[in-house]
Amino acid sequence: MAEGEFTAAVAIIGNEILSGRTQDANLQYIALGLNAVGVRLKEVRVVADEEAAIVRAINELRAAHTYVFTSGGIGPTHDDITAASIAKAFGVPLKRDPRAVERLLRQMPADQLNEARLRMANIPEGGELIDNPISNAPGFRIGNVYVMAGIPRILQAMFDGVRHNLKGGKPMLGQSIDLYIGEGAIAAGLTEIQNARPSLEIGSYPFVRKGTFGTAIVCRGTEAAEITEAVDAVRTLAHSLGARTEESGKGPE
Amino acid sequence: MAEGEFTAAVAIIGNEILSGRTQDANLQYIALGLNAVGVRLKEVRVVADEEAAIVRAINELRAAHTYVFTSGGIGPTHDDITAASIAKAFGVPLKRDPRAVERLLRQMPADQLNEARLRMANIPEGGELIDNPISNAPGFRIGNVYVMAGIPRILQAMFDGVRHNLKGGKPMLGQSIDLYIGEGAIAAGLTEIQNARPSLEIGSYPFVRKGTFGTAIVCRGTEAAEITEAVDAVRTLAHSLGARTEESGKGPE
Repeated sequence: MAEGEFTAAVAIIGNEILSGRTQDANLQYIALGLNAVGVRLKEVRVVADEEAAIVRAINELRAAHTYVFTSGGIGPTHDDITAASIAKAFGVPLKRDPRAVERLLRQMPADQLNEARLRMANIPEGGELIDNPISNAPGFRIGNVYVMAGIPRILQAMFDGVRHNLKGGKPMLGQSIDLYIGEGAIAAGLTEIQNARPSLEIGSYPFVRKGTFGTAIVCRGTEAAEITEAVDAVRTLAHSLGARTEESGKGPE
Repeated sequence: MAEGEFTAAVAIIGNEILSGRTQDANLQYIALGLNAVGVRLKEVRVVADEEAAIVRAINELRAAHTYVFTSGGIGPTHDDITAASIAKAFGVPLKRDPRAVERLLRQMPADQLNEARLRMANIPEGGELIDNPISNAPGFRIGNVYVMAGIPRILQAMFDGVRHNLKGGKPMLGQSIDLYIGEGAIAAGLTEIQNARPSLEIGSYPFVRKGTFGTAIVCRGTEAAEITEAVDAVRTLAHSLGARTEESGKGPE
């Protein structure tokens, strides 16, 4: 990876993912959003609802990446220990934040704001609140760590609110082409195409569609012209091997 | 976690997950399968197709857990670097394995078994092959690390072939109950229920269904009677607060 690159990690905090009860629905949304602002998602961890595991993961990830985004564990129940664990990771106290209390009061009358719900206003000292336009209970940012809710609709709203303020590089662009030929038949030529273009990331993904085997090639990079040129080379290679190709357009592949 | 517990980690190897192109479809399958054989999935990492990242993740995970399962990166193209990276992690040579070559020859005539496809027969020294009943190209196990394909149908077949040979503890059981009341209203009572039952893992997950807010409570453990007793306590708590409850039966929640 180039020096000066902006990288990110995601920490998905939740036993419900590790138990198989819940299929994660946040990672892809964050990944695609980061591409658009020129930040590269480099690592994801799914971490149990255990303080020591969260502290270790957060401290490793925040040292290694420009940004860390977490999902999950900021609700009012006993298994919501993300805020306390993040405070411990940063070595700062967890404090009842009056700005967060005020936001909770937008959502419910004071007589419903019991001690459990007030836990959602406990923020590590130095944290800045992240808006929650869905249900008000805020996330927070401390240092380079953005702490967000696990509920997809709320996570998406929180992430949309912060991502355009991230400092990033050029947006990641992508283009894909489907080749109706096996990966093994195209591999040697594809290696040459990749080796000649070190600034691009060329991925090869086998598929079966209506009983026909094929290979999807994805070219990613920051320069549209380079990507188009690489896809042209892949297309030429496939045709030289007698394979049919299909293209569905450009997108954040 | 109890001493003597059998734990696992999953490493999902693939830029296509990190770029947002592909939604992971393997984690949940592995998680549910491990519950049934009494192995607890404790950590998941999604790692880029970069040797240093793979080596570091594998070495950290295999030291920390009873088992490590990897998905992805064992095909014939330039971006398939999992086998070589695992060899490096274990400090052993990567060798063309004649048993693996024989399996590839079941899938294709010798004149199609080009150098790229033969890469799929490169196995770290000391590795034992994992059957691939779908397309023959094998996975492998070395030490406590099980290396499998990323294509869900193949991963599932490989995993089904190995999981019943894993040494595990008692199967993880689960039962859930839906409460038509907010998390914040039930949190205090739920904390008491959890604190009185340290051998269980009680999770609380808010939901919105047809415009109505509610909380799904999941009780997990190895003893069915303990779980049922905890769910009874949760039901009683909810009814004491005037909330309707709904139960959909027992499963590997």
